[in-house]
Amino acid sequence: MTRFALTIEFDGGPFMGLQRQDHGPSVQQAVEDAALAITGEQVILHSAGRTDSGVHALAMRSHFDLEKLFDPFRLMEGLNAKLRPDPVAVTACEVVADDWHARFSCVGRRYRYLIRNRRAPLTLTRGREWLVTRPLDAKAMHRAAQHLVGHHDFTTFRSAHCQAADPVKSLDRLDVRREGEMVIVEADARSFLHHQVRSMVGTLAMVGLGRWREEQVAQALAARDRQQLGHNAPPDGLYFLAAIYPDD
Amino acid sequence: MTRFALTIEFDGGPFMGLQRQDHGPSVQQAVEDAALAITGEQVILHSAGRTDSGVHALAMRSHFDLEKLFDPFRLMEGLNAKLRPDPVAVTACEVVADDWHARFSCVGRRYRYLIRNRRAPLTLTRGREWLVTRPLDAKAMHRAAQHLVGHHDFTTFRSAHCQAADPVKSLDRLDVRREGEMVIVEADARSFLHHQVRSMVGTLAMVGLGRWREEQVAQALAARDRQQLGHNAPPDGLYFLAAIYPDD
Repeated sequence: MTRFALTIEFDGGPFMGLQRQDHGPSVQQAVEDAALAITGEQVILHSAGRTDSGVHALAMRSHFDLEKLFDPFRLMEGLNAKLRPDPVAVTACEVVADDWHARFSCVGRRYRYLIRNRRAPLTLTRGREWLVTRPLDAKAMHRAAQHLVGHHDFTTFRSAHCQAADPVKSLDRLDVRREGEMVIVEADARSFLHHQVRSMVGTLAMVGLGRWREEQVAQALAARDRQQLGHNAPPDGLYFLAAIYPDD
Repeated sequence: MTRFALTIEFDGGPFMGLQRQDHGPSVQQAVEDAALAITGEQVILHSAGRTDSGVHALAMRSHFDLEKLFDPFRLMEGLNAKLRPDPVAVTACEVVADDWHARFSCVGRRYRYLIRNRRAPLTLTRGREWLVTRPLDAKAMHRAAQHLVGHHDFTTFRSAHCQAADPVKSLDRLDVRREGEMVIVEADARSFLHHQVRSMVGTLAMVGLGRWREEQVAQALAARDRQQLGHNAPPDGLYFLAAIYPDD
Protein backbone atom coordinates (compact mmCIF):
# COMPACT_ATOMS: atom_id res chain seq x y z
CA MET A 1 0.00 0.00 0.00
CA THR A 2 1.28 3.48 -0.89
CA ARG A 3 -0.21 6.69 0.49
CA PHE A 4 -0.35 9.72 -1.82
CA ALA A 5 -0.79 13.24 -0.47
CA LEU A 6 -2.47 15.65 -2.89
CA THR A 7 -2.77 19.42 -2.96
CA ILE A 8 -6.08 20.30 -4.60
CA GLU A 9 -7.41 23.59 -5.98
CA PHE A 10 -11.07 23.87 -6.89
CA ASP A 11 -13.91 26.20 -7.73
CA GLY A 12 -16.65 25.18 -5.30
CA GLY A 13 -19.44 26.66 -7.43
CA PRO A 14 -20.58 23.52 -9.29
CA PHE A 15 -20.26 21.19 -6.28
CA MET A 16 -22.42 20.34 -3.29
CA GLY A 17 -19.21 20.52 -1.26
CA LEU A 18 -15.85 18.82 -0.92
CA GLN A 19 -17.08 15.65 0.78
CA ARG A 20 -19.15 13.03 -1.00
CA GLN A 21 -22.91 13.72 -0.95
CA ASP A 22 -25.91 11.59 -1.83
CA HIS A 23 -27.74 14.44 -3.52
CA GLY A 24 -25.22 15.95 -5.93
CA PRO A 25 -21.68 16.23 -7.28
CA SER A 26 -18.76 16.63 -4.88
CA VAL A 27 -15.05 17.28 -5.25
CA GLN A 28 -14.37 14.01 -3.41
CA GLN A 29 -16.38 12.01 -5.90
CA ALA A 30 -14.70 13.78 -8.86
CA VAL A 31 -11.22 12.93 -7.54
CA GLU A 32 -12.16 9.36 -6.56
CA ASP A 33 -13.69 8.77 -10.00
CA ALA A 34 -10.56 10.15 -11.69
CA ALA A 35 -8.36 7.90 -9.52
CA LEU A 36 -10.48 4.87 -10.44
CA ALA A 37 -10.17 5.68 -14.14
CA ILE A 38 -6.38 6.04 -13.87
CA THR A 39 -5.51 3.23 -11.46
CA GLY A 40 -8.43 0.81 -11.55
CA GLU A 41 -8.63 1.15 -7.77
CA GLN A 42 -11.60 2.49 -5.80
CA VAL A 43 -9.95 4.89 -3.37
CA ILE A 44 -11.30 6.97 -0.50
CA LEU A 45 -10.19 10.61 -0.45
CA HIS A 46 -9.52 12.04 3.02
CA SER A 47 -9.12 15.82 3.29
CA ALA A 48 -7.90 18.36 5.84
CA GLY A 49 -11.11 20.37 5.78
CA ARG A 50 -14.74 20.04 4.86
CA THR A 51 -16.15 22.75 2.66
CA ASP A 52 -19.74 23.60 1.84
CA SER A 53 -21.32 24.05 -1.55
CA GLY A 54 -19.84 27.12 -3.26
CA VAL A 55 -16.76 27.30 -1.00
CA HIS A 56 -13.44 27.25 -2.86
CA ALA A 57 -9.95 25.90 -2.14
CA LEU A 58 -6.57 27.18 -3.25
CA ALA A 59 -4.61 24.42 -1.53
CA MET A 60 -6.72 21.72 0.11
CA ARG A 61 -4.58 18.83 1.38
CA SER A 62 -5.92 15.31 0.87
CA HIS A 63 -4.71 11.73 0.65
CA PHE A 64 -5.66 8.31 -0.68
CA ASP A 65 -4.01 4.88 -0.75
CA LEU A 66 -3.19 2.70 -3.74
CA GLU A 67 -2.25 -0.99 -3.82
CA LYS A 68 -0.24 -0.64 -7.04
CA LEU A 69 2.84 1.57 -7.40
CA PHE A 70 2.51 4.82 -9.35
CA ASP A 71 4.91 7.64 -10.12
CA PRO A 72 3.44 10.67 -8.25
CA PHE A 73 3.98 13.09 -11.15
CA ARG A 74 2.33 10.76 -13.67
CA LEU A 75 -0.50 10.13 -11.22
CA MET A 76 -1.06 13.90 -10.86
CA GLU A 77 -1.05 14.37 -14.63
CA GLY A 78 -3.46 11.49 -15.11
CA LEU A 79 -5.84 12.77 -12.42
CA ASN A 80 -5.84 16.25 -13.97
CA ALA A 81 -6.56 14.80 -17.42
CA LYS A 82 -9.50 12.77 -16.08
CA LEU A 83 -10.84 15.64 -13.93
CA ARG A 84 -11.57 17.77 -17.01
CA PRO A 85 -13.86 19.60 -17.45
CA ASP A 86 -14.56 19.81 -13.71
CA PRO A 87 -12.89 22.91 -12.17
CA VAL A 88 -10.70 20.76 -9.91
CA ALA A 89 -6.91 20.54 -10.26
CA VAL A 90 -4.27 18.54 -8.43
CA THR A 91 -1.41 21.01 -8.05
CA ALA A 92 0.96 18.69 -6.15
CA CYS A 93 1.23 14.94 -5.47
CA GLU A 94 3.76 13.09 -3.33
CA VAL A 95 4.23 9.79 -1.53
CA VAL A 96 3.90 10.13 2.25
CA ALA A 97 4.31 7.82 5.24
CA ASP A 98 1.46 5.35 5.82
CA ASP A 99 0.57 7.05 9.11
CA TRP A 100 0.33 10.57 7.61
CA HIS A 101 -3.33 11.56 7.52
CA ALA A 102 -4.61 14.63 5.66
CA ARG A 103 -7.27 15.23 8.31
CA PHE A 104 -5.94 13.77 11.56
CA SER A 105 -2.30 14.85 11.14
CA CYS A 106 -3.34 18.42 10.30
CA VAL A 107 -2.53 20.87 13.11
CA GLY A 108 -3.67 24.11 11.48
CA ARG A 109 -6.15 25.40 8.93
CA ARG A 110 -6.23 28.79 7.24
CA TYR A 111 -9.20 30.35 5.50
CA ARG A 112 -9.52 33.60 3.57
CA TYR A 113 -12.79 35.45 2.96
CA LEU A 114 -13.10 38.02 0.16
CA ILE A 115 -15.66 40.83 0.38
CA ARG A 116 -15.98 43.31 -2.48
CA ASN A 117 -17.28 46.55 -1.03
CA ARG A 118 -18.80 48.70 -3.76
CA ARG A 119 -22.10 49.60 -5.39
CA ALA A 120 -21.52 47.94 -8.78
CA PRO A 121 -22.36 44.26 -9.31
CA LEU A 122 -19.65 41.62 -9.67
CA THR A 123 -18.46 40.67 -13.15
CA LEU A 124 -15.14 38.78 -13.36
CA THR A 125 -15.39 37.58 -9.77
CA ARG A 126 -19.02 36.52 -9.67
CA GLY A 127 -19.39 33.48 -7.40
CA ARG A 128 -15.90 34.18 -5.99
CA GLU A 129 -16.58 37.11 -3.64
CA TRP A 130 -19.32 38.46 -1.38
CA LEU A 131 -20.59 41.79 -2.69
CA VAL A 132 -21.48 44.25 0.10
CA THR A 133 -22.84 47.45 -1.43
CA ARG A 134 -22.86 49.68 1.67
CA PRO A 135 -19.57 51.01 3.04
CA LEU A 136 -17.75 48.74 5.50
CA ASP A 137 -15.44 50.05 8.22
CA ALA A 138 -12.69 47.42 7.99
CA LYS A 139 -10.79 48.81 10.98
CA ALA A 140 -13.87 48.47 13.20
CA MET A 141 -14.30 44.92 11.87
CA HIS A 142 -10.70 44.11 12.76
CA ARG A 143 -11.09 45.48 16.28
CA ALA A 144 -14.32 43.56 16.79
CA ALA A 145 -12.67 40.40 15.43
CA GLN A 146 -10.17 40.44 18.30
CA HIS A 147 -13.03 39.61 20.70
CA LEU A 148 -13.25 36.23 18.94
CA VAL A 149 -9.55 35.34 19.03
CA GLY A 150 -8.66 32.85 21.77
CA HIS A 151 -10.12 29.75 23.41
CA HIS A 152 -13.93 30.05 23.41
CA ASP A 153 -17.19 28.19 23.13
CA PHE A 154 -18.18 29.11 19.55
CA THR A 155 -21.76 27.78 19.73
CA THR A 156 -23.08 31.12 18.44
CA PHE A 157 -20.93 30.79 15.31
CA ARG A 158 -21.75 27.15 14.58
CA SER A 159 -24.19 25.66 12.12
CA ALA A 160 -27.15 23.73 13.50
CA HIS A 161 -25.80 20.84 11.40
CA CYS A 162 -22.32 20.93 12.95
CA GLN A 163 -21.22 17.42 13.94
CA ALA A 164 -18.28 18.41 16.17
CA ALA A 165 -18.49 16.91 19.66
CA ASP A 166 -17.17 20.05 21.33
CA PRO A 167 -18.01 23.68 20.43
CA VAL A 168 -14.92 24.93 22.28
CA LYS A 169 -12.15 25.89 19.84
CA SER A 170 -9.01 28.02 19.84
CA LEU A 171 -9.04 30.75 17.21
CA ASP A 172 -5.42 31.80 16.71
CA ARG A 173 -5.88 34.72 14.33
CA LEU A 174 -8.75 36.71 12.81
CA ASP A 175 -7.47 39.65 10.77
CA VAL A 176 -9.51 42.10 8.68
CA ARG A 177 -7.86 44.50 6.26
CA ARG A 178 -8.95 46.73 3.38
CA GLU A 179 -7.17 46.72 -0.01
CA GLY A 180 -8.96 49.22 -2.25
CA GLU A 181 -12.55 48.08 -2.65
CA MET A 182 -11.73 44.66 -1.15
CA VAL A 183 -12.15 43.77 2.52
CA ILE A 184 -10.14 40.62 3.28
CA VAL A 185 -10.61 38.43 6.33
CA GLU A 186 -8.11 35.72 7.29
CA ALA A 187 -8.64 33.13 10.00
CA ASP A 188 -6.20 30.62 11.50
CA ALA A 189 -7.10 27.82 13.89
CA ARG A 190 -6.23 24.21 14.60
CA SER A 191 -9.77 23.44 13.49
CA PHE A 192 -13.06 25.21 12.84
CA LEU A 193 -16.71 24.39 13.49
CA HIS A 194 -19.15 24.04 10.59
CA HIS A 195 -20.00 27.53 9.21
CA GLN A 196 -17.69 29.15 11.78
CA VAL A 197 -15.76 31.35 9.35
CA ARG A 198 -18.87 32.43 7.41
CA SER A 199 -20.69 33.12 10.68
CA MET A 200 -17.82 35.21 12.05
CA VAL A 201 -17.46 37.16 8.77
CA GLY A 202 -21.19 37.83 8.54
CA THR A 203 -21.28 39.11 12.10
CA LEU A 204 -18.18 41.28 11.63
CA ALA A 205 -19.90 42.77 8.57
CA MET A 206 -22.72 43.91 10.88
CA VAL A 207 -20.07 45.87 12.79
CA GLY A 208 -18.53 47.14 9.55
CA LEU A 209 -21.91 48.46 8.43
CA GLY A 210 -22.36 50.26 11.77
CA ARG A 211 -25.41 48.17 12.72
CA TRP A 212 -23.62 46.46 15.61
CA ARG A 213 -21.28 47.96 18.17
CA GLU A 214 -17.94 46.15 18.45
CA GLU A 215 -18.81 44.92 21.95
CA GLN A 216 -21.90 43.16 20.64
CA VAL A 217 -19.63 40.58 19.00
CA ALA A 218 -18.24 39.69 22.44
CA GLN A 219 -21.77 39.56 23.82
CA ALA A 220 -22.95 37.29 21.00
CA LEU A 221 -19.98 34.96 21.65
CA ALA A 222 -20.68 34.89 25.40
CA ALA A 223 -24.37 34.09 24.76
CA ARG A 224 -23.43 30.70 23.22
CA ASP A 225 -26.69 30.90 21.28
CA ARG A 226 -27.03 30.55 17.49
CA GLN A 227 -29.99 32.96 17.61
CA GLN A 228 -27.56 35.73 18.61
CA LEU A 229 -25.65 35.42 15.32
CA GLY A 230 -25.48 38.64 13.30
CA HIS A 231 -25.43 37.12 9.84
CA ASN A 232 -24.04 34.06 8.02
CA ALA A 233 -21.95 35.27 5.06
CA PRO A 234 -22.50 33.47 1.71
CA PRO A 235 -20.10 30.69 0.64
CA ASP A 236 -18.92 32.53 -2.52
CA GLY A 237 -16.18 34.54 -0.79
CA LEU A 238 -14.68 31.70 1.26
CA TYR A 239 -11.39 29.99 0.33
CA PHE A 240 -9.58 27.16 2.08
CA LEU A 241 -6.04 28.53 1.86
CA ALA A 242 -3.72 26.13 3.64
CA ALA A 243 -3.43 23.09 5.90
CA ILE A 244 -0.45 22.88 8.24
CA TYR A 245 1.29 19.67 9.35
CA PRO A 246 3.91 19.13 12.08
CA ASP A 247 6.58 18.12 9.54
CA ASP A 248 6.02 21.15 7.26
CA MET B 1 -27.30 67.41 -24.48
CA THR B 2 -25.32 65.99 -21.56
CA ARG B 3 -22.26 63.79 -21.95
CA PHE B 4 -21.77 61.01 -19.42
CA ALA B 5 -18.39 59.33 -18.92
CA LEU B 6 -18.58 55.75 -17.68
CA THR B 7 -16.00 53.41 -16.18
CA ILE B 8 -16.90 49.87 -17.18
CA GLU B 9 -15.69 46.50 -15.88
CA PHE B 10 -16.55 43.35 -17.81
CA ASP B 11 -15.81 39.69 -18.29
CA GLY B 12 -15.14 39.39 -22.03
CA GLY B 13 -15.91 35.66 -22.13
CA PRO B 14 -19.55 35.77 -23.28
CA PHE B 15 -19.06 38.62 -25.76
CA MET B 16 -17.81 38.89 -29.34
CA GLY B 17 -15.91 41.94 -28.14
CA LEU B 18 -16.47 45.41 -26.74
CA GLN B 19 -17.65 47.03 -29.97
CA ARG B 20 -21.00 46.23 -31.57
CA GLN B 21 -20.90 43.24 -33.94
CA ASP B 22 -23.37 41.90 -36.47
CA HIS B 23 -22.74 38.29 -35.55
CA GLY B 24 -23.09 38.17 -31.76
CA PRO B 25 -23.42 39.91 -28.40
CA SER B 26 -21.13 42.82 -27.53
CA VAL B 27 -20.51 44.91 -24.43
CA GLN B 28 -21.44 48.02 -26.44
CA GLN B 29 -24.84 46.61 -27.33
CA ALA B 30 -25.46 45.50 -23.73
CA VAL B 31 -24.73 49.00 -22.39
CA GLU B 32 -26.68 50.75 -25.18
CA ASP B 33 -29.69 48.49 -24.59
CA ALA B 34 -29.52 49.18 -20.84
CA ALA B 35 -29.34 52.94 -21.52
CA LEU B 36 -32.36 52.73 -23.83
CA ALA B 37 -34.34 50.85 -21.17
CA ILE B 38 -33.49 53.46 -18.51
CA THR B 39 -33.68 56.69 -20.50
CA GLY B 40 -35.77 55.93 -23.57
CA GLU B 41 -32.89 57.28 -25.67
CA GLN B 42 -30.91 55.29 -28.26
CA VAL B 43 -27.34 56.20 -27.39
CA ILE B 44 -24.03 55.36 -29.02
CA LEU B 45 -21.31 54.16 -26.67
CA HIS B 46 -17.78 55.36 -27.51
CA SER B 47 -14.88 53.68 -25.71
CA ALA B 48 -11.17 54.27 -25.16
CA GLY B 49 -10.17 50.87 -26.48
CA ARG B 50 -11.45 48.09 -28.66
CA THR B 51 -11.25 44.63 -27.21
CA ASP B 52 -11.63 41.24 -28.88
CA SER B 53 -13.85 38.38 -27.88
CA GLY B 54 -12.70 36.97 -24.56
CA VAL B 55 -10.66 40.05 -23.57
CA HIS B 56 -11.61 41.60 -20.22
CA ALA B 57 -11.67 45.12 -18.79
CA LEU B 58 -11.15 46.29 -15.22
CA ALA B 59 -11.68 49.98 -16.06
CA MET B 60 -12.67 50.70 -19.63
CA ARG B 61 -13.58 54.37 -20.13
CA SER B 62 -16.57 55.16 -22.34
CA HIS B 63 -19.12 57.88 -22.95
CA PHE B 64 -22.56 58.52 -24.39
CA ASP B 65 -24.84 61.55 -24.73
CA LEU B 66 -28.36 62.01 -23.43
CA GLU B 67 -30.91 64.70 -24.35
CA LYS B 68 -32.68 64.48 -20.99
CA LEU B 69 -31.03 65.28 -17.68
CA PHE B 70 -30.13 62.39 -15.36
CA ASP B 71 -28.42 62.18 -12.01
CA PRO B 72 -25.16 60.30 -12.73
CA PHE B 73 -25.41 58.07 -9.65
CA ARG B 74 -29.00 57.07 -10.42
CA LEU B 75 -28.07 56.50 -14.06
CA MET B 76 -25.23 54.19 -12.99
CA GLU B 77 -27.52 52.28 -10.65
CA GLY B 78 -30.16 51.94 -13.35
CA LEU B 79 -27.65 50.75 -15.96
CA ASN B 80 -26.29 48.13 -13.55
CA ALA B 81 -29.79 46.90 -12.76
CA LYS B 82 -30.62 46.54 -16.47
CA LEU B 83 -27.25 44.96 -17.34
CA ARG B 84 -27.98 41.90 -15.19
CA PRO B 85 -27.27 39.07 -15.74
CA ASP B 86 -24.58 40.12 -18.23
CA PRO B 87 -21.13 40.27 -16.56
CA VAL B 88 -20.82 44.01 -17.23
CA ALA B 89 -20.79 46.64 -14.47
CA VAL B 90 -20.62 50.43 -14.54
CA THR B 91 -18.28 51.25 -11.66
CA ALA B 92 -18.33 55.05 -12.09
CA CYS B 93 -20.45 57.60 -13.95
CA GLU B 94 -19.97 61.36 -14.20
CA VAL B 95 -20.98 64.31 -16.32
CA VAL B 96 -18.13 65.56 -18.53
CA ALA B 97 -17.62 68.47 -20.95
CA ASP B 98 -19.28 68.08 -24.35
CA ASP B 99 -15.88 67.96 -26.07
CA TRP B 100 -14.49 65.19 -23.83
CA HIS B 101 -14.26 62.02 -25.91
CA ALA B 102 -13.56 58.59 -24.41
CA ARG B 103 -11.58 57.55 -27.47
CA PHE B 104 -10.17 60.73 -29.01
CA SER B 105 -9.30 62.52 -25.76
CA CYS B 106 -7.49 59.44 -24.44
CA VAL B 107 -3.70 59.88 -24.36
CA GLY B 108 -2.69 56.57 -22.80
CA ARG B 109 -3.85 52.98 -22.54
CA ARG B 110 -2.64 50.31 -20.15
CA TYR B 111 -3.10 46.56 -20.57
CA ARG B 112 -2.19 43.69 -18.27
CA TYR B 113 -1.70 40.10 -19.39
CA LEU B 114 -1.88 37.21 -16.91
CA ILE B 115 -0.03 33.94 -17.57
CA ARG B 116 -0.32 31.08 -15.09
CA ASN B 117 2.83 29.01 -15.40
CA ARG B 118 2.25 25.54 -13.96
CA ARG B 119 1.37 22.00 -14.97
CA ALA B 120 -2.09 21.82 -13.40
CA PRO B 121 -5.15 23.04 -15.32
CA LEU B 122 -6.96 26.26 -14.39
CA THR B 123 -9.92 26.08 -12.02
CA LEU B 124 -11.04 29.37 -10.43
CA THR B 125 -9.39 31.46 -13.15
CA ARG B 126 -10.47 29.51 -16.23
CA GLY B 127 -11.07 31.95 -19.09
CA ARG B 128 -9.20 34.63 -17.12
CA GLU B 129 -5.57 33.57 -17.62
CA TRP B 130 -3.35 31.89 -20.21
CA LEU B 131 -2.08 28.57 -18.89
CA VAL B 132 1.51 27.83 -19.99
CA THR B 133 2.54 24.42 -18.67
CA ARG B 134 6.29 24.52 -19.42
CA PRO B 135 8.58 26.72 -17.29
CA LEU B 136 8.89 30.36 -18.39
CA ASP B 137 11.98 32.46 -17.72
CA ALA B 138 10.29 35.76 -16.83
CA LYS B 139 13.58 37.64 -16.57
CA ALA B 140 14.54 36.65 -20.12
CA MET B 141 11.06 37.72 -21.25
CA HIS B 142 11.51 41.10 -19.58
CA ARG B 143 14.91 41.64 -21.21
CA ALA B 144 13.54 40.65 -24.62
CA ALA B 145 10.55 42.96 -24.11
CA GLN B 146 12.87 45.97 -23.92
CA HIS B 147 13.64 45.48 -27.65
CA LEU B 148 9.99 46.41 -28.32
CA VAL B 149 9.85 49.56 -26.17
CA GLY B 150 10.13 52.77 -28.19
CA HIS B 151 8.91 54.17 -31.51
CA HIS B 152 8.68 51.33 -34.04
CA ASP B 153 6.81 49.93 -37.00
CA PHE B 154 4.83 47.14 -35.28
CA THR B 155 3.62 45.43 -38.47
CA THR B 156 4.93 42.07 -37.20
CA PHE B 157 2.76 42.39 -34.08
CA ARG B 158 -0.42 43.50 -35.85
CA SER B 159 -3.49 41.51 -36.84
CA ALA B 160 -4.21 41.10 -40.55
CA HIS B 161 -7.57 42.74 -39.72
CA CYS B 162 -6.00 45.82 -38.11
CA GLN B 163 -7.67 48.99 -39.42
CA ALA B 164 -5.07 51.50 -38.20
CA ALA B 165 -3.70 53.74 -40.97
CA ASP B 166 -0.19 53.68 -39.57
CA PRO B 167 1.64 50.66 -38.06
CA VAL B 168 4.17 52.98 -36.37
CA LYS B 169 3.46 53.31 -32.65
CA SER B 170 5.32 54.34 -29.50
CA LEU B 171 5.40 51.63 -26.84
CA ASP B 172 6.20 53.39 -23.55
CA ARG B 173 6.54 50.39 -21.24
CA LEU B 174 6.55 46.61 -21.50
CA ASP B 175 7.34 44.97 -18.18
CA VAL B 176 7.37 41.27 -17.35
CA ARG B 177 7.56 40.01 -13.78
CA ARG B 178 7.00 36.75 -11.94
CA GLU B 179 4.82 36.50 -8.81
CA GLY B 180 4.81 32.87 -7.68
CA GLU B 181 3.31 30.78 -10.48
CA MET B 182 2.05 33.92 -12.26
CA VAL B 183 3.93 35.75 -15.01
CA ILE B 184 2.48 39.23 -15.42
CA VAL B 185 3.02 41.46 -18.43
CA GLU B 186 2.06 45.16 -18.41
CA ALA B 187 2.08 47.41 -21.45
CA ASP B 188 1.65 51.20 -21.69
CA ALA B 189 1.23 53.17 -24.91
CA ARG B 190 -0.72 56.09 -26.30
CA SER B 191 -2.45 53.52 -28.51
CA PHE B 192 -2.03 49.94 -29.65
CA LEU B 193 -2.56 48.11 -32.92
CA HIS B 194 -5.11 45.30 -33.17
CA HIS B 195 -3.72 42.17 -31.45
CA GLN B 196 -0.51 44.03 -30.56
CA VAL B 197 -0.44 43.09 -26.87
CA ARG B 198 -1.40 39.46 -27.48
CA SER B 199 1.19 39.23 -30.29
CA MET B 200 3.93 40.69 -28.11
CA VAL B 201 3.05 38.42 -25.16
CA GLY B 202 2.95 35.31 -27.34
CA THR B 203 6.33 36.14 -28.84
CA LEU B 204 7.87 36.89 -25.44
CA ALA B 205 6.59 33.50 -24.26
CA MET B 206 8.69 31.90 -27.03
CA VAL B 207 11.70 33.54 -25.38
CA GLY B 208 10.51 32.49 -21.91
CA LEU B 209 10.28 28.87 -23.07
CA GLY B 210 13.83 29.04 -24.46
CA ARG B 211 12.67 28.45 -28.05
CA TRP B 212 13.71 31.96 -29.17
CA ARG B 213 16.82 33.89 -28.32
CA GLU B 214 16.12 37.39 -26.93
CA GLU B 215 17.60 39.01 -30.07
CA GLN B 216 15.07 37.21 -32.27
CA VAL B 217 12.38 39.52 -30.89
CA ALA B 218 14.32 42.52 -32.24
CA GLN B 219 14.78 40.72 -35.57
CA ALA B 220 11.07 39.88 -35.82
CA LEU B 221 10.23 43.55 -35.12
CA ALA B 222 12.71 44.77 -37.75
CA ALA B 223 11.30 42.32 -40.32
CA ARG B 224 7.94 44.17 -40.32
CA ASP B 225 6.35 40.89 -41.40
CA ARG B 226 3.43 39.17 -39.66
CA GLN B 227 4.87 35.81 -40.75
CA GLN B 228 7.80 36.45 -38.37
CA LEU B 229 5.49 36.52 -35.34
CA GLY B 230 6.38 33.95 -32.67
CA HIS B 231 2.88 33.28 -31.36
CA ASN B 232 -0.38 35.14 -30.71
CA ALA B 233 -1.38 34.65 -27.07
CA PRO B 234 -5.05 33.78 -26.38
CA PRO B 235 -7.50 36.54 -25.31
CA ASP B 236 -8.28 34.96 -21.92
CA GLY B 237 -5.34 36.54 -20.08
CA LEU B 238 -5.74 40.08 -21.43
CA TYR B 239 -7.22 42.94 -19.37
CA PHE B 240 -7.78 46.57 -20.33
CA LEU B 241 -6.56 48.20 -17.12
CA ALA B 242 -6.77 51.95 -17.57
CA ALA B 243 -7.29 54.84 -19.97
CA ILE B 244 -5.45 58.08 -19.29
CA TYR B 245 -6.73 61.59 -20.12
CA PRO B 246 -4.92 64.93 -20.04
CA ASP B 247 -7.12 66.25 -17.20
CA ASP B 248 -6.68 63.18 -14.95
